Amino acid sequence: MIEIPNWLANRAYLTPNRIAIKSKGQEITFIELHQKVLRTAESLAFQGVKKEDIVSVLMTNSLEMIQVIHALKYIGARTVLLNNRLTKHELLWQITDSKSCLILSEDQFLEQLNLNKNEGSKRICTLEELQMSPVKGIGFEYQKEFNLNDIDTIMYTSGTTGKPKGVIQTYGNHWWSAIGSSLNLGLKENDCWLAIVPFFHISGLSILIRSVIYGIPIVLHEKFSADEANRSIMEEGVTIVSVVSKMLTQMVQDLEESRYPTSFRCMLLGGGPAPKSLLEDCKIKEVPVYQTYGMTETASQIVTLSPEYSLSKLGSAGKPLFPSQLRIEKNGEVLEPYEHGEIVVKGPNVTKGYFHRSEETEKAIIDGWLYTGDLGYLDEDGFLYVLDRRSDLIISGGENVYPAEIESILLSHPTINDAGVIGIEDQDWGQVPIAFIVTKEKIAIDEIIDFCRIKLAKYKVPTRIYMVDTLPRNATNKLQRKKLYDYILPEGE
Amino acid sequence: MIEIPNWLANRAYLTPNRIAIKSKGQEITFIELHQKVLRTAESLAFQGVKKEDIVSVLMTNSLEMIQVIHALKYIGARTVLLNNRLTKHELLWQITDSKSCLILSEDQFLEQLNLNKNEGSKRICTLEELQMSPVKGIGFEYQKEFNLNDIDTIMYTSGTTGKPKGVIQTYGNHWWSAIGSSLNLGLKENDCWLAIVPFFHISGLSILIRSVIYGIPIVLHEKFSADEANRSIMEEGVTIVSVVSKMLTQMVQDLEESRYPTSFRCMLLGGGPAPKSLLEDCKIKEVPVYQTYGMTETASQIVTLSPEYSLSKLGSAGKPLFPSQLRIEKNGEVLEPYEHGEIVVKGPNVTKGYFHRSEETEKAIIDGWLYTGDLGYLDEDGFLYVLDRRSDLIISGGENVYPAEIESILLSHPTINDAGVIGIEDQDWGQVPIAFIVTKEKIAIDEIIDFCRIKLAKYKVPTRIYMVDTLPRNATNKLQRKKLYDYILPEGE
Repeated sequence: MIEIPNWLANRAYLTPNRIAIKSKGQEITFIELHQKVLRTAESLAFQGVKKEDIVSVLMTNSLEMIQVIHALKYIGARTVLLNNRLTKHELLWQITDSKSCLILSEDQFLEQLNLNKNEGSKRICTLEELQMSPVKGIGFEYQKEFNLNDIDTIMYTSGTTGKPKGVIQTYGNHWWSAIGSSLNLGLKENDCWLAIVPFFHISGLSILIRSVIYGIPIVLHEKFSADEANRSIMEEGVTIVSVVSKMLTQMVQDLEESRYPTSFRCMLLGGGPAPKSLLEDCKIKEVPVYQTYGMTETASQIVTLSPEYSLSKLGSAGKPLFPSQLRIEKNGEVLEPYEHGEIVVKGPNVTKGYFHRSEETEKAIIDGWLYTGDLGYLDEDGFLYVLDRRSDLIISGGENVYPAEIESILLSHPTINDAGVIGIEDQDWGQVPIAFIVTKEKIAIDEIIDFCRIKLAKYKVPTRIYMVDTLPRNATNKLQRKKLYDYILPEGE
Repeated sequence: MIEIPNWLANRAYLTPNRIAIKSKGQEITFIELHQKVLRTAESLAFQGVKKEDIVSVLMTNSLEMIQVIHALKYIGARTVLLNNRLTKHELLWQITDSKSCLILSEDQFLEQLNLNKNEGSKRICTLEELQMSPVKGIGFEYQKEFNLNDIDTIMYTSGTTGKPKGVIQTYGNHWWSAIGSSLNLGLKENDCWLAIVPFFHISGLSILIRSVIYGIPIVLHEKFSADEANRSIMEEGVTIVSVVSKMLTQMVQDLEESRYPTSFRCMLLGGGPAPKSLLEDCKIKEVPVYQTYGMTETASQIVTLSPEYSLSKLGSAGKPLFPSQLRIEKNGEVLEPYEHGEIVVKGPNVTKGYFHRSEETEKAIIDGWLYTGDLGYLDEDGFLYVLDRRSDLIISGGENVYPAEIESILLSHPTINDAGVIGIEDQDWGQVPIAFIVTKEKIAIDEIIDFCRIKLAKYKVPTRIYMVDTLPRNATNKLQRKKLYDYILPEGE
């Protein structure tokens, strides 16, 4: 059992006057952030939040969201980070499944998603209510230490089952992820990380955590704009940025003939395979791209390619971070270089399992090794090449889209008898989902799309829906999604 | 239970072609070092060394010593690092107490210390024998993973009891020490650590360990010379050096009007309080001194002062490394700023105790907090000021000298009835021990000194011995060492 000091509170003690956050022309030091977080934690305590309570957070990237995320750690509560692009239907699943006792939400989501304050007997607390909570006289003691085995955050992902499940991320998972990254990228006194990916994803949350562990500032943008992101790199001393392909494509276009300053040292590119043309553009424009492979279950990066290999190992995701391990398996055998199989990983950054899902945990994690479901191979030097994110996973604009989840929504429509979903290439989003349905009676496609929009986040709604007579299923009635590619008609037909 | 990949083997996989060691004009990469270590481990296996065996190492800083230290980790053996300045008497105590099954020794120490190859039924293996061991056909598998809870090394320190005891250093202690240091000092791609302190001390061993965890080279000097050390900083790209005051004094003198290059970023100064005049010289000559406080029990640094505070907090040892904690206690109470008390520390770098000494462990470590026996206070910003290393500890040229240990040797002489030892200031060594003895009959001081030289390392032999009638003892017969300072006669009298 390892206990280490509360990260932000420790920073406020060790390096109080270093900048923690730059946002909208404002600079906040670690001691100032600590004081704000302490105030927020007191408000949460007033709202009845206690150690080990489960609290869902539905917010957009902002200083307030950062405060809430740290404040929940100060209380020792467990934070469910809700993707704010989800529908009411999807949100309620995660809130109920996690047994959250409170939902902290911005006003905009209450209205937008039509969440009634007492729906499903969940208690909702708006930011405004939180900020207005009295704090005087609260006998509140914040967590001075974090136990690395304790649960810090929970993030939902789907997978093959259709029902999203909560990935447990302990304090230790986040700690080791941050340390593994620093041993790979180094740590300089002028480092500054640009936060333009959502904090409800591990790519964004891990930036917040690195900031307090490393003692470096983040530059916070509430929304992504290629132009603004480039300006921060050019003018605000940003040295590292986390991006997905779609964002990087826009940034490189926006860059035109300009070049980033030499102090800018790392464009950390995750969220699925990158198009080669993009990597070549980056080479020409001297953008220091580090390709990376990671997932919610590994608390961010687990394999990263450094730029010295970006050409000689083009297309590779790199080698594992120092504390982690990697192998390729098929039918229980560890494979040799160049043999294709499942990517299996191990390390102290890897989740201990799915929240309240011991069966799924036992299937995914065996002897400390996580079976990712992704396909890949190693070359003779041990560099990883990812062939396919889970055989059926669709990655759209950096968001994971699981066919099984969309299919289960389609099947819940009264006139749909059978459904199959696959991803197709898309210039803007990398991939988008399309659907094939078998219906009892004729029905307008628009009606199905409207139905999906209520139940599914926008990026999961199929961009095309085909009505077919039957779907390809094998002898055991398992849907053969690969065969659906033969069903696609040229667009317009 | 956390398992991470074997540090050196992992470096040989992740960054095979980076330089691991620069020594005598030769450069060795991590993959080359791994291969040498694998060969050494095979030889050790041939010599019968197995996982969890305890092996004592009696060597001087050299490439061979580095290979042996790593090779014992490859086997999973536990390494007792013997101070090669100790006498036969002292060495045999540590070898016997640790239950070492093998002593790996350089030839020079066999002769010098008159160790008979089978004395005390200990098996001795010389380097030459090791190098000549056949390795073909050894069915040997090296440790692919290190369990952070496992014992890696054991180093002996004395303390108040007189009998040296073995400090347990786990893989985790070393790991967290390296990580804590990197979060404080940063980690740059051009980093290079100069090794001029002995590897049998934690200050030296920790350099070896950081090198493989960080993936940075060390420049190895087999012996310390101020002139050579300065040359390495000037010409060989050294960015960090670990020193004690005596070494730094010589280096700063040798530097004359020259200045270190700006790439040289850290002179890590440990091993006891530094004279203010030295710190002022360093300021004038722009030497970036980081004062630090640490001990064998904390696996190197636990508190470090960064140069930005070297003037405003002159004389302070700084603040704890990120994963560690610090407080000042007296009679079980945690004290307020400026109140003097015992320095108490906690952290994953802190030893889990003394080898085979559960009683001493329980006295020293309570609820995870180590009672250092050192005195100090914190200022209002939380900076540590060390008042006294253990009330009676003498630090001579960076080596810890324990009065109780010298007293017990003196008392073992047939004509000595009582003995007391204290430290006095010395221009060259910082401090040196002097002794007061009560004898049954008149005896020549030289004879006592000769006796000490057989039993004690040179730096522990009292530089002056006074014969007195009685020693100051309190009502419970406890020696009052402080009062001995009143007994000192001006030199020459």
